Amino acid sequence: MADEWTPPAAIEDFVRLDHDRAARRGYPEAVYCEGKTVDQVRAIAAAVGARQARTLFTRAAPEQAAAVLAELPDAAHDPQARLLAWPPQPPEPTGGLVLVLAAGTSDLPVAREAQLTARHLGRATELVTDVGVAGLHRVLGQLDLLRRARVVVVAAGMDGALPSVVAGLVAAPVVALPTSVGYGAAFGGIAPLLSMLNSCSPGVAVVNIDNGYGAGHLAAQIAAPAP
Amino acid sequence: MADEWTPPAAIEDFVRLDHDRAARRGYPEAVYCEGKTVDQVRAIAAAVGARQARTLFTRAAPEQAAAVLAELPDAAHDPQARLLAWPPQPPEPTGGLVLVLAAGTSDLPVAREAQLTARHLGRATELVTDVGVAGLHRVLGQLDLLRRARVVVVAAGMDGALPSVVAGLVAAPVVALPTSVGYGAAFGGIAPLLSMLNSCSPGVAVVNIDNGYGAGHLAAQIAAPAP
Amino acid sequence: MADEWTPPAAIEDFVRLDHDRAARRGYPEAVYCEGKTVDQVRAIAAAVGARQARTLFTRAAPEQAAAVLAELPDAAHDPQARLLAWPPQPPEPTGGLVLVLAAGTSDLPVAREAQLTARHLGRATELVTDVGVAGLHRVLGQLDLLRRARVVVVAAGMDGALPSVVAGLVAAPVVALPTSVGYGAAFGGIAPLLSMLNSCSPGVAVVNIDNGYGAGHLAAQIAAPAP
Amino acid sequence: MADEWTPPAAIEDFVRLDHDRAARRGYPEAVYCEGKTVDQVRAIAAAVGARQARTLFTRAAPEQAAAVLAELPDAAHDPQARLLAWPPQPPEPTGGLVLVLAAGTSDLPVAREAQLTARHLGRATELVTDVGVAGLHRVLGQLDLLRRARVVVVAAGMDGALPSVVAGLVAAPVVALPTSVGYGAAFGGIAPLLSMLNSCSPGVAVVNIDNGYGAGHLAAQIAAPAP
Amino acid sequence: MADEWTPPAAIEDFVRLDHDRAARRGYPEAVYCEGKTVDQVRAIAAAVGARQARTLFTRAAPEQAAAVLAELPDAAHDPQARLLAWPPQPPEPTGGLVLVLAAGTSDLPVAREAQLTARHLGRATELVTDVGVAGLHRVLGQLDLLRRARVVVVAAGMDGALPSVVAGLVAAPVVALPTSVGYGAAFGGIAPLLSMLNSCSPGVAVVNIDNGYGAGHLAAQIAAPAP
Amino acid sequence: MADEWTPPAAIEDFVRLDHDRAARRGYPEAVYCEGKTVDQVRAIAAAVGARQARTLFTRAAPEQAAAVLAELPDAAHDPQARLLAWPPQPPEPTGGLVLVLAAGTSDLPVAREAQLTARHLGRATELVTDVGVAGLHRVLGQLDLLRRARVVVVAAGMDGALPSVVAGLVAAPVVALPTSVGYGAAFGGIAPLLSMLNSCSPGVAVVNIDNGYGAGHLAAQIAAPAP
Amino acid sequence: MADEWTPPAAIEDFVRLDHDRAARRGYPEAVYCEGKTVDQVRAIAAAVGARQARTLFTRAAPEQAAAVLAELPDAAHDPQARLLAWPPQPPEPTGGLVLVLAAGTSDLPVAREAQLTARHLGRATELVTDVGVAGLHRVLGQLDLLRRARVVVVAAGMDGALPSVVAGLVAAPVVALPTSVGYGAAFGGIAPLLSMLNSCSPGVAVVNIDNGYGAGHLAAQIAAPAP
Amino acid sequence: MADEWTPPAAIEDFVRLDHDRAARRGYPEAVYCEGKTVDQVRAIAAAVGARQARTLFTRAAPEQAAAVLAELPDAAHDPQARLLAWPPQPPEPTGGLVLVLAAGTSDLPVAREAQLTARHLGRATELVTDVGVAGLHRVLGQLDLLRRARVVVVAAGMDGALPSVVAGLVAAPVVALPTSVGYGAAFGGIAPLLSMLNSCSPGVAVVNIDNGYGAGHLAAQIAAPAP
Repeated sequence: MADEWTPPAAIEDFVRLDHDRAARRGYPEAVYCEGKTVDQVRAIAAAVGARQARTLFTRAAPEQAAAVLAELPDAAHDPQARLLAWPPQPPEPTGGLVLVLAAGTSDLPVAREAQLTARHLGRATELVTDVGVAGLHRVLGQLDLLRRARVVVVAAGMDGALPSVVAGLVAAPVVALPTSVGYGAAFGGIAPLLSMLNSCSPGVAVVNIDNGYGAGHLAAQIAAPAP
Repeated sequence: MADEWTPPAAIEDFVRLDHDRAARRGYPEAVYCEGKTVDQVRAIAAAVGARQARTLFTRAAPEQAAAVLAELPDAAHDPQARLLAWPPQPPEPTGGLVLVLAAGTSDLPVAREAQLTARHLGRATELVTDVGVAGLHRVLGQLDLLRRARVVVVAAGMDGALPSVVAGLVAAPVVALPTSVGYGAAFGGIAPLLSMLNSCSPGVAVVNIDNGYGAGHLAAQIAAPAP
Repeated sequence: MADEWTPPAAIEDFVRLDHDRAARRGYPEAVYCEGKTVDQVRAIAAAVGARQARTLFTRAAPEQAAAVLAELPDAAHDPQARLLAWPPQPPEPTGGLVLVLAAGTSDLPVAREAQLTARHLGRATELVTDVGVAGLHRVLGQLDLLRRARVVVVAAGMDGALPSVVAGLVAAPVVALPTSVGYGAAFGGIAPLLSMLNSCSPGVAVVNIDNGYGAGHLAAQIAAPAP
Repeated sequence: MADEWTPPAAIEDFVRLDHDRAARRGYPEAVYCEGKTVDQVRAIAAAVGARQARTLFTRAAPEQAAAVLAELPDAAHDPQARLLAWPPQPPEPTGGLVLVLAAGTSDLPVAREAQLTARHLGRATELVTDVGVAGLHRVLGQLDLLRRARVVVVAAGMDGALPSVVAGLVAAPVVALPTSVGYGAAFGGIAPLLSMLNSCSPGVAVVNIDNGYGAGHLAAQIAAPAP
Repeated sequence: MADEWTPPAAIEDFVRLDHDRAARRGYPEAVYCEGKTVDQVRAIAAAVGARQARTLFTRAAPEQAAAVLAELPDAAHDPQARLLAWPPQPPEPTGGLVLVLAAGTSDLPVAREAQLTARHLGRATELVTDVGVAGLHRVLGQLDLLRRARVVVVAAGMDGALPSVVAGLVAAPVVALPTSVGYGAAFGGIAPLLSMLNSCSPGVAVVNIDNGYGAGHLAAQIAAPAP
Repeated sequence: MADEWTPPAAIEDFVRLDHDRAARRGYPEAVYCEGKTVDQVRAIAAAVGARQARTLFTRAAPEQAAAVLAELPDAAHDPQARLLAWPPQPPEPTGGLVLVLAAGTSDLPVAREAQLTARHLGRATELVTDVGVAGLHRVLGQLDLLRRARVVVVAAGMDGALPSVVAGLVAAPVVALPTSVGYGAAFGGIAPLLSMLNSCSPGVAVVNIDNGYGAGHLAAQIAAPAP
Repeated sequence: MADEWTPPAAIEDFVRLDHDRAARRGYPEAVYCEGKTVDQVRAIAAAVGARQARTLFTRAAPEQAAAVLAELPDAAHDPQARLLAWPPQPPEPTGGLVLVLAAGTSDLPVAREAQLTARHLGRATELVTDVGVAGLHRVLGQLDLLRRARVVVVAAGMDGALPSVVAGLVAAPVVALPTSVGYGAAFGGIAPLLSMLNSCSPGVAVVNIDNGYGAGHLAAQIAAPAP
Repeated sequence: MADEWTPPAAIEDFVRLDHDRAARRGYPEAVYCEGKTVDQVRAIAAAVGARQARTLFTRAAPEQAAAVLAELPDAAHDPQARLLAWPPQPPEPTGGLVLVLAAGTSDLPVAREAQLTARHLGRATELVTDVGVAGLHRVLGQLDLLRRARVVVVAAGMDGALPSVVAGLVAAPVVALPTSVGYGAAFGGIAPLLSMLNSCSPGVAVVNIDNGYGAGHLAAQIAAPAP
């Protein structure tokens, strides 16, 4: 059989771990697991262990998570958020508070992914759940906490109305995180995504549907201490 | 030239006025002007005058409105709402109150079309403007009025978040009327339409984008007196 | 491992049951099961049992339904409609009749979700199946029943033509409930959704695709007794 | 200046008139005017005059129509349908009857394009207007005519429900012709197009939005005499 | 438990078999199996057996097909086309020839559904496979057969180019049947559907994606004997 | 004529100026001009003059700008950015630097709207133009400036690739501002919007297409001084 | 008024002419005129004159073309293709033949833009018009020319079927250039774009809708002489 | 049972192997496995073995690959790329170098399909992985290799930004290969597809999402030796 048919096997043939990322951007590397084979994930985890660099593994399916834990047994793992972090202890918090709101219980996995990401990138975080606009008293009851935050991440599916309401209540920027919660004309998160892009309140920063990692990373950057 | 090339000219060749509609459904006829020639609109207005039947003319461009007024000089006309009504006096109100909210000033023409339609179909109406969710105190300041209504029509563009908030505050059904106000990813009203279809509050009845006539008609039916 | 990695476990950490909803809006609470874990659903069912409040569980998968029935063994359950209700007996009916039509047999699960919701919110209901417009005599044969209803819910997939036909026959408002029945260019219910939003008959209130709960809730509000 | 910058001017440089089309397919040539310059249209009309071949000019803007009439002064012209035909007299009708229905008055231009096309391709035609499903008695009143047709063309915008209803009433095939009549979520004719593609009645042949020429041509082929 | 929770079980509660359809439209009934329970399909098959009426069962999953065969053991069944017919012998052919082309091998199941439907509705049929436009000699080699047909059904996925080519070669109408064959930007059949709706050749009648039954039914109507 | 037909004329009937916004959120009011009549805009400008409150007027057409200038003759006005500000002098800058990049010259109006907004909300700003990724040396030549910014706004149309490249180069968050520059499959800005939402670099905050005001406002919030 | 309100006026403030492009990529600079002001275009043309560098101006509206010609009076200009070139004489042709096909007359402007671009980038070109697949003999009559080309550019709207047919006939790559010719479900060129992306013939390279410049540039690169 | 119900079984009834393709186009046949039954694939593989013609099998599921290997045991097989080739040895390379870049590890299967296709069509190939734009130094580190290639295939998902960057760096044409890597608003590859169609760098040839075979085939044609 021809040589070309041997697939790349050495780690340097399929991934270029970005050793300088922390230096260049100041935040740890993240490994996006979707679309990688279990063998690839395990090889990457082994490399992480070898160079002892702070790393997140995002969107890890159960068998991918097991591969990470086989190489990094003390890694922290939230199966619902599909996230692993090594080392398990986050850094001491600096900068401002990152507050994460989940409109409904079903938005919790994505909201947790955002919270844990921001925490492991060095911020203090808080999480409040089930504060959708169908019962306004629930979000209005959190005004003090809302106004203490340097940035608020708002995860919501369905009508995606919560970020507009929150952005009208606070001076801090709002990271709007649409989720694929809902059905029918929610179109897997398009409905809340469009709501958030068209917010009638200024100060709303939108990220991709279900992109809890991105929301948490962005929030950590916004709440970073002044240089 | 062949006979087929003579276009239909007599009114009965291009429109079948529904004389029995009032009897059958209990609401006056409406003439949708878009896509009709000025001559066709004028011929219809003349027929309306001849049979003295309560009629609305919707989405009338200025030259179409002028054609109606030429035949029915005392018709009521709101140029922004592109609506005319004949006779100009609406019937005595019966049934419950139809309350119309416009999220922003730019939603006013469509909201007015809804209000005037409901009024000419026989309901008492009220209109409140500029109560978008970016400043919650504005809608919360209307709670008493909101709770007096038998049905609330909510016109909103952009994020279309207001119907969800209102439906969480009242026991009455909410008619959600998306408008094409906004730009970019508002997509001519698709964003608020999807928000409204995916409202996290139950009790939201959605109509087509910019369909003020349909919203007002539906509201009049919901608020109709018990048979 | 860091504290943040312990997921919320107490019910008050992931859901805020809206004890005051009945008082505020006059209708029982509904728990949307999709996206909740089985453990979360069971904890909610236990809380419902503890406070003895009328509650619906919607879009419940079999294992979620089993969790509800483990805590509330006498709850009523329709597996096709994916609905549970507790207490199983609906309230005495008040207000007007809610008539539910299903265009085809395949629309039956969603139509049943609408019917049972309206019944448990306190209305009398009737259900008629397989009256699609391909055989007009089927719907025309129901004229007497149609004209007795205070509101008609029409569930239809494919071309979504039935609500337009029905709205042309009755004075009552029509709640149009698009279903994902169909294939190809039905796009999971978009085709009937658009048909219904563009109905040539006024008086059509549209809800989300497959949203039987929303349709039934809206119908119950429309048919509510005058205050 | 370089030679390449001289645009093609002789007719054979920009259009290949299909002299053999009538022989090959049995139907006259049609010239699609949109996107052609007035000079190009006039050159084509002159060539048609020179070879004396039956030809239709479709979607002709006023200045394009004037260019045709300058070369073919006796051509028949329907400005609303944007159609011209030369020679103006259609052939003697053969085959079955082509019946054209227009759901509303606004669908008339497209319906006329279909009717005139079918007539000039050699069929007998009839046209009935304003028979939308909001008033079923209007279409049911045409049953005798409907059942005499070899094929029925149904032009409709908005919900596009009429072809489904008609196809349920007749044994003949129905050519469904969606129009861009409507607004908002009609999306320039997508809503009726999808309705028609998803008709719950079999026997519906769909053509492009506003494609009256295509509908008329197809109907003429279906109603052609047996070979 | 309340009465409403007993689901409809008698056949007349969930389906209205259209006994008069054959009389009214002249074609046998078809039962669309998707979305029906196995029990519902079996009850319908039993009713078909009882009234001995020619019937097709379309889009039948294996377990639904088994239910039909349990009641109608001699029914004909093509598992790939997901079609069953009873009685298994089609009627004597009348009218013109229905020719079915499949652009590629993967289009065969849908093409077979069309062919068998047309055959059981009373037409003579022929099927030619793998004649896509990437090798024009394949379709050009079928010219004699193409020109003998009263109507040509063309099933194609991917670019959907074959109907345009075929319609340019024959005087008969072409029924264009888009299939969901392809991937990526084929979008489950949208790409060929749009191609077919925009065919540069007149005489193309489009049906829904993968709707072999509809294509075969329409073709049978077009090729029906003159009345 | 009936009373309802008198449109709202007093300013308090059509707009609720949010006097407390500055107190509540700390940023000046903005008046969105699109969809407002010239008379409404002028009345609002007069009210702004009367209460002497810092205000921006966004998306102002020429005749709307003239109405503002008639009431507030010293307002600053950028016709390309369709923005006016009163008072014309922005506040003393506080907080970090807001750097605005425009990928191409055609993105300049929207980029200017962002820059001027951020400046009038109290930040120092810089603008760099024509640094698209087709010539990487152009953006790489700005590395020092890029790394001095507290936040970078990147306006880009077409492929929307610039924010991904910039976010890979800096530790600060990037506000991605898609523009409707481009044609064909750019779909009025959808292509860059989707690129930005799917950025392979974390730290990208997306706003609506052509929403320069929103981008500038968000950037000003991110770069605000620590409380 | 504040300093920020003075818009950029010097050319180096709004455009970075890429002096090194020819050296780096070997092809002349192109100035995309859409979205630039007439003053900006004129300033760029003046700079081009000053540095005497071969340049194309694409998508130039009449007033923009006039501004170019004011500075570069001997520039070549094709108004339909909206293209200008300076110097007007293209370079001596090298490499292989670029053959451009236009499916219909209406595709000619875009096809000409492709041809002239390729010619001014240094290739020999030929153009053949009106060879759509509705009359296969037209394209089959060009087989000799087709097989002499090193690359074939195929411009087509509507069904976009021509590239698939051509790619099946030649060994050279085909550049598929979708045009916005068509209406209704052509969606401004989406239909042919999707057809081309899904071509059943391999060897098809797709560019953006109406992007004649891009097609010509790509073809010139493919047909470049071996290094 | 009727004869029509016997499905086609002989290979010549369901596939027309294109014996003359190599002669006509100069490239080996490819068998697209998706949508074919295992029996059909095996019958085709047997026919390939019988006529000893170079053939690729694309998008082969494991059981289809097993069927090929049962008939052609020495065929080369890459399970991730779902590709098989017979004979396993590719031809001696001629023409220029085909360089394949994969933006991320997850793009590797599609990139490998492109590389192996180009190699078996007779070109020398190289593959470089994980060079996304989030870390520009990774692609800039490959400049020498990039400039040696006659054509560069760039596989990328998410924002699809890499082809624009690469096309700005090289004189060779770039084949842009969008992948379905990503989630949410990546829409299964639509986001990178649109980015690539709207590349701000000229010289980008786009193929269908995940169409590694098509990209490799096109690249092989572009890099073919001069005739």
